[in-house]
Amino acid sequence: MNNLKDKVAIVGLGWTKFSRNSGVSVKNLALESCKNAIDDAGLTVKDVDGIATYNIGDSVSPYVVATGLGLPELRWNIEYFAGANGATSTLLTAACAVIGGLADTVLIFRAMNGRTGMRLGGAGLSLNTSGVEQYCVPYGLTTFPQAVAMIARRHMIKYGTTSRQMGAVAVTCRENAILNERAVLRSPLSIEDHQNSKMIVDPLRLYDCCQETDGACAVLITSADRAKDLRHTPVYLMSGTHGAGWRSGEFFGKTTAFWFEWDELSETYAKTMAPELFGKAGITPEDVDVAELYDCFTIEPIVQLEDFGFCKKGEGGAFVESGAIKRDGRLPMNTHGGLLSEGYIHGFNHVLEAASQLRGEAGARQIKDAEIALVAGYCGPVANAVILRR
Amino acid sequence: MNNLKDKVAIVGLGWTKFSRNSGVSVKNLALESCKNAIDDAGLTVKDVDGIATYNIGDSVSPYVVATGLGLPELRWNIEYFAGANGATSTLLTAACAVIGGLADTVLIFRAMNGRTGMRLGGAGLSLNTSGVEQYCVPYGLTTFPQAVAMIARRHMIKYGTTSRQMGAVAVTCRENAILNERAVLRSPLSIEDHQNSKMIVDPLRLYDCCQETDGACAVLITSADRAKDLRHTPVYLMSGTHGAGWRSGEFFGKTTAFWFEWDELSETYAKTMAPELFGKAGITPEDVDVAELYDCFTIEPIVQLEDFGFCKKGEGGAFVESGAIKRDGRLPMNTHGGLLSEGYIHGFNHVLEAASQLRGEAGARQIKDAEIALVAGYCGPVANAVILRR
Repeated sequence: MNNLKDKVAIVGLGWTKFSRNSGVSVKNLALESCKNAIDDAGLTVKDVDGIATYNIGDSVSPYVVATGLGLPELRWNIEYFAGANGATSTLLTAACAVIGGLADTVLIFRAMNGRTGMRLGGAGLSLNTSGVEQYCVPYGLTTFPQAVAMIARRHMIKYGTTSRQMGAVAVTCRENAILNERAVLRSPLSIEDHQNSKMIVDPLRLYDCCQETDGACAVLITSADRAKDLRHTPVYLMSGTHGAGWRSGEFFGKTTAFWFEWDELSETYAKTMAPELFGKAGITPEDVDVAELYDCFTIEPIVQLEDFGFCKKGEGGAFVESGAIKRDGRLPMNTHGGLLSEGYIHGFNHVLEAASQLRGEAGARQIKDAEIALVAGYCGPVANAVILRR
Repeated sequence: MNNLKDKVAIVGLGWTKFSRNSGVSVKNLALESCKNAIDDAGLTVKDVDGIATYNIGDSVSPYVVATGLGLPELRWNIEYFAGANGATSTLLTAACAVIGGLADTVLIFRAMNGRTGMRLGGAGLSLNTSGVEQYCVPYGLTTFPQAVAMIARRHMIKYGTTSRQMGAVAVTCRENAILNERAVLRSPLSIEDHQNSKMIVDPLRLYDCCQETDGACAVLITSADRAKDLRHTPVYLMSGTHGAGWRSGEFFGKTTAFWFEWDELSETYAKTMAPELFGKAGITPEDVDVAELYDCFTIEPIVQLEDFGFCKKGEGGAFVESGAIKRDGRLPMNTHGGLLSEGYIHGFNHVLEAASQLRGEAGARQIKDAEIALVAGYCGPVANAVILRR
């Protein structure tokens, strides 16, 4: 079947303020970010005929946004029940809806009061004990950070990855956030600060963990043909995948990965899907100028860098410690500060940062001549990623 | 942009038993229906690389099914948080994923213990009183049947539609269900039985309301090219839409329609989207041989028949009473018995019935020479429908 390469482009970007207390409803956040994305494209609500979003029951539906914006007609929409497995895959599915002719111009948004509303980091999500949780919850294994701690520990044991190497991710993100007025955390952070920060779930320290954030962001996409006539440099979707290995079922309710049947915790499904992702885009990892990788915890982008092929398996720790992910390194990563320092908008803010960089509109944090970006949502036994180009 | 006409086909159909008490988990139901759809296509789990579903938090995710089936690799998936607005639109979105190359062969399923698990007909869904519900719930307007009763009453006032006409829908569905071994309700039903049945929400009587059912069904789709080589007559997707007017936001939680800002309760969004739906398929309503219309309550298909253009506005009651929707009528409708008599699988069972008819494999209930079918999910201020052909 047809590939989607270069058929759809991002033409509008919209953010709200990111904060620890928005003071407004999720609905307001969603509307503000969507309105900003439409304005940014130089279009009006009358041009929008599709809306897509993802959430875990903590946000508003496309219908609410269509009503709030006053759209004359919504021709296609989807509300994907997903965590960060929706971070890039919602965009991907929406792009296919444009290709299939279901809609011409689609808003994709993620809105959440992640700090003052429903918080994702605690044990509250594990109420369902009918599945594999029955083997975890009674033993106190109830939160997402605990699951990730096991991944980090496995990677440390198998490859010698160190806490300082994980700290290098946090420090790099903070350096980038200092250049980003949108970032919630902008005070300087040293590797010593990281090493001295309190242990949250061994081996994850405070600064290995991302924030909880109130905010929203949205992108507007349309066909490549139409994108050429709009205000900004179009950012084209080259390829994308939203994959999972077969043991990826049930842990933490319904959507998150079934970690404990995953054969090898130190590997992600990104490794399996990378050949298709890069192959369909017609590029190799060497061609990627900027990477915005899902960094709910510092170990995550380390494993992703390996599994997407930017370094050898097991060398992700050394790669980040070498400075390769810094602004002047081989592969500038999380140039906005990531979830760790810009804010936790469930990974969708990574899509907007990639588009900003590819437009050449990232201001003080602009990476020179950025032409191709990889954006990854959550990668574990499930994974999702897209490749974008200017 | 490209149209999706005839690019994707349904190649496998799978059902579980429909009942009032499945005795098994929703997960089991989902797996059984998906396995049956794969078997029906003459394929194996190794051929499946995409899974899509819709639910309102009462079912299992694509990951659970991928794990349970033992899929080697899942390349695309989506879990659409939706009521019957997902009944045909999930299929539609999955078809676009095939066209865009995200997956080659996709399972779409709906599984629910709608009777013994989470029940949709009660007031429990209206816990959120922060939106428009604050103007309804305190006055006792808390359930979906109550909202539909207002639609029915409006239609009766404006167009003279009668309870007997609504009853004609129930009687016709039951006549069809008697020919359908899968149907839960197969005892004869007369118009007098309908008229004498107890009032549930005035003007809706017992037999105006569909059942609550435990069960699941699934279809397997693939590209039209590949479909030609498979076991059954391919059923091609000609067109589809999933639209909404702008005032369609918030009533009953997040996904259902914001009825009380809808300008005219007796009209549905099907009216707005019909020209695109038929236009893209290149047909007119006269070309439709079989219609499987969402019949959670008897008034619904009456309004849909008008708004899709099978009769004039306001004449839906007379149309159904004339016998036009019977097996030997102008437009055989809900040939399986519908939600009213076959079972309530949230409208997805309508897709399978349409495909069965178009294959010519509907047995005792086969409509002769059925070549084109309209399938509609829920239609109100939001609406979704597809047109299929053999």
